[in-house]
Amino acid sequence: MRSVFIGRFQPIHLGHMHTIKQILNKGEDLVIIIGSAQYSHTPNNPFTGGERVMLIKRAIMDEGLPLDRIDIIPIPDININPLWIAHLKSYVPYFEKAYTHNVLVQRLMRDSGIKIDETTLLERSAYSANHVRDLIRWNNEEWTTLVPPGVVKMMKKYKWDERIKEVGNNTTKR
Amino acid sequence: MRSVFIGRFQPIHLGHMHTIKQILNKGEDLVIIIGSAQYSHTPNNPFTGGERVMLIKRAIMDEGLPLDRIDIIPIPDININPLWIAHLKSYVPYFEKAYTHNVLVQRLMRDSGIKIDETTLLERSAYSANHVRDLIRWNNEEWTTLVPPGVVKMMKKYKWDERIKEVGNNTTKR
Amino acid sequence: MRSVFIGRFQPIHLGHMHTIKQILNKGEDLVIIIGSAQYSHTPNNPFTGGERVMLIKRAIMDEGLPLDRIDIIPIPDININPLWIAHLKSYVPYFEKAYTHNVLVQRLMRDSGIKIDETTLLERSAYSANHVRDLIRWNNEEWTTLVPPGVVKMMKKYKWDERIKEVGNNTTKR
Amino acid sequence: MRSVFIGRFQPIHLGHMHTIKQILNKGEDLVIIIGSAQYSHTPNNPFTGGERVMLIKRAIMDEGLPLDRIDIIPIPDININPLWIAHLKSYVPYFEKAYTHNVLVQRLMRDSGIKIDETTLLERSAYSANHVRDLIRWNNEEWTTLVPPGVVKMMKKYKWDERIKEVGNNTTKR
Amino acid sequence: MRSVFIGRFQPIHLGHMHTIKQILNKGEDLVIIIGSAQYSHTPNNPFTGGERVMLIKRAIMDEGLPLDRIDIIPIPDININPLWIAHLKSYVPYFEKAYTHNVLVQRLMRDSGIKIDETTLLERSAYSANHVRDLIRWNNEEWTTLVPPGVVKMMKKYKWDERIKEVGNNTTKR
Amino acid sequence: MRSVFIGRFQPIHLGHMHTIKQILNKGEDLVIIIGSAQYSHTPNNPFTGGERVMLIKRAIMDEGLPLDRIDIIPIPDININPLWIAHLKSYVPYFEKAYTHNVLVQRLMRDSGIKIDETTLLERSAYSANHVRDLIRWNNEEWTTLVPPGVVKMMKKYKWDERIKEVGNNTTKR
Repeated sequence: MRSVFIGRFQPIHLGHMHTIKQILNKGEDLVIIIGSAQYSHTPNNPFTGGERVMLIKRAIMDEGLPLDRIDIIPIPDININPLWIAHLKSYVPYFEKAYTHNVLVQRLMRDSGIKIDETTLLERSAYSANHVRDLIRWNNEEWTTLVPPGVVKMMKKYKWDERIKEVGNNTTKR
Repeated sequence: MRSVFIGRFQPIHLGHMHTIKQILNKGEDLVIIIGSAQYSHTPNNPFTGGERVMLIKRAIMDEGLPLDRIDIIPIPDININPLWIAHLKSYVPYFEKAYTHNVLVQRLMRDSGIKIDETTLLERSAYSANHVRDLIRWNNEEWTTLVPPGVVKMMKKYKWDERIKEVGNNTTKR
Repeated sequence: MRSVFIGRFQPIHLGHMHTIKQILNKGEDLVIIIGSAQYSHTPNNPFTGGERVMLIKRAIMDEGLPLDRIDIIPIPDININPLWIAHLKSYVPYFEKAYTHNVLVQRLMRDSGIKIDETTLLERSAYSANHVRDLIRWNNEEWTTLVPPGVVKMMKKYKWDERIKEVGNNTTKR
Repeated sequence: MRSVFIGRFQPIHLGHMHTIKQILNKGEDLVIIIGSAQYSHTPNNPFTGGERVMLIKRAIMDEGLPLDRIDIIPIPDININPLWIAHLKSYVPYFEKAYTHNVLVQRLMRDSGIKIDETTLLERSAYSANHVRDLIRWNNEEWTTLVPPGVVKMMKKYKWDERIKEVGNNTTKR
Repeated sequence: MRSVFIGRFQPIHLGHMHTIKQILNKGEDLVIIIGSAQYSHTPNNPFTGGERVMLIKRAIMDEGLPLDRIDIIPIPDININPLWIAHLKSYVPYFEKAYTHNVLVQRLMRDSGIKIDETTLLERSAYSANHVRDLIRWNNEEWTTLVPPGVVKMMKKYKWDERIKEVGNNTTKR
Repeated sequence: MRSVFIGRFQPIHLGHMHTIKQILNKGEDLVIIIGSAQYSHTPNNPFTGGERVMLIKRAIMDEGLPLDRIDIIPIPDININPLWIAHLKSYVPYFEKAYTHNVLVQRLMRDSGIKIDETTLLERSAYSANHVRDLIRWNNEEWTTLVPPGVVKMMKKYKWDERIKEVGNNTTKR
């Protein structure tokens, strides 16, 4: 039994990790799908797909999670809802079940005959990537308690926290 | 030091495995990049990006290769050469070196300041995905000696060899 | 003489029907053009192009309007204004005149040498698809008086009113 | 029960009409799907989607076929096989069955759980749009016996036969 | 030494001219890059790429600036930040330096190893294309003092000021 | 009176120059349109749009042609014929007449109401960019007599002749 967990992971935080561990603990194999993978350097999508792969891989290795049961797949957005499930399926290994708390994705999945499952959540207002990016913009170091330690380290090493600040107030290119 | 190895892997064969093992033996981390990932069901691209991830993962696990040092990333084609390196870089973890025997990719890489490295090759006429697909179309079971055993098994399980035959003589949709 | 009437028809309502009947009564053949046809499952575009064809066909058949003088053509958006008229013309039978109350479409049409004509309107604040969708979201059954009876029936049969509620408060996929 | 019949109809010929009539005679409603609708002025796609709607409408009206049971829908190509069925479904009314003699489309349909049905064919070497276009290029008037009389008339009225000759030997724009 | 100056020039104004002259006075050759070139007839992009070429050419010729040292290149947006620099570079002559006051473009340029330089600015609140378009919408003739005289003349000749008013309150096509 | 001359200019040669000079000698202003501008590093499109601007600018400056009467505009291909004229018009200054020897472009132009004009040609088999690229691939220095001297110099300076050889036998990326 293989499941998918869909997110943008900008960046991966402890709420994501909480979900990932629950799915693995049920004995399911897991594909972590990085959505909107072609975008970067925007307020909501600061990191490239590849940078997000780096952060996620670091987080799951630091936790000792089983790499043989996990795939990490970045997929680009196509922005056309009726094609989205077919698009997703073409990029990822066969799966039977999806985890998501988004009502639209749930409906699109169900309309395609894919089962939706659930996990318990950490407190959602804190454990959200949106909140993490806001804290970074406000120079509030509390963000470092919301993401895995290896993620903090990598973000500081590459100055990705600085990038979040730079692109934060600047939605248009010119 | 992280390197990339670029192919379409339609399907992965022993020549690919030979290259992958040489790179890992040098102590380099490796990103296996699956090109033309959005295509499937054509004579040259019979398998989806996700199906190719399945085959590659199976092959490297059967060989006991170190998953912590390997990423497998499907990326779509954009068909515009001057954007291709930037496109590639945005989907994959940071890398310093590329392996490819294609002259054009070598030039595009070098023009972007990326180092090109080399491995020894198995006999190229035999160990090519093109040849594997041809053997399957001719019902010649010799193809099963050119790809890893786990790949043979998975292709038969899902009847992917049948798909190669069906799409083989049929390049247009209608 | 053939004319076009352009809308998104999310869903078709009595205001649309009022316009359609006036054009036919003038003796003109009519192409009903469904814009933004590739989109669905969003707050402003809940239905697919094909679902909108079903609703429009039902409405014009229930009224006994002459099918030999009417074409219904869904066309995708291209989101580039200077190409829009050429795009439209390539998907629809030859036409000489356009009906629309939108100032931009009027200008684009006129700049291409296409005549703009007018019809009288039902009270616009009530007879708008936007208002119909809002009423459905508010569980206000008054919406059933603003669209043709056959449309009400089909929307309930397929639970499309439920879809409007589900996607209504959810503009992003994830 | 609604079925789809998929073609490019460049132009519609008596072989298409033979299939259309058989489907209607079984009591099924029919969606005639015009593929590759965005293209025109090429050797294989001389006519726009809209021009093909005109020809098909003319042919089915001349035969007195029931317009209330027929939809004609032009859809653009997306050139990505794993998305094609989802794309098709989003543009057309709900359907249960497909008619096509193309092996790839049959496989894509079946993989999506759509039933494939069949009709008898007129002699295929003669009744093909490719052959009709070739005859026109060779100034061989025999083509007028392979398409419905109303189609001949419309093609001559608009000089579309001339267009076939002009674009026939000229696959590139410049 | 060749530099690029990037803008949308909707329309070109005296602030742009001030920057252009400073760059030329330093002895650098200059490529004036017209961004978002595929768009027109929207509130923020009223003019086509070609119309903006006409206005810019007029302005630099009226000032007697050296055409042999200036290129004017319209480039379409691709809306994917990590590809933007590669896209830009593929459309324009080789350059070593970029002028822009936008923080994101600065970062994207620097990440690609391109030097950023600066010029002094005229008072930015007045000399902005946004402000010029607003004045036109408010029927405030003061806009004619913010753009070069030849630009005023050309905009009135072609009634482009009227277009700004028409598309100004109308962001959607339908 | 402004005219357009459309080509891919891979690279510009003396046949192109012959046409350009004839048009200017008639007293017409001229837009030199570089088609397929997004492509490079392929056998038929070795140079980027920007590199082709560099070569053309060099050639017309060396001949002392009047820059105030000439625009050079690279435009990307859209590969959809019915949109091509609208696409072209949106990127270039207003024009009344087009020069091209291609039958399809002539038809598309005429169908849009644009006048087609003609110039005399140098011997076409020799003065073709295709022939120039072939000579370079065959290491035949005769190519240097078919393009302007400044173009020869620039191509050697940047080793663009070498690029033609490298990409010449290599149509696919991988």
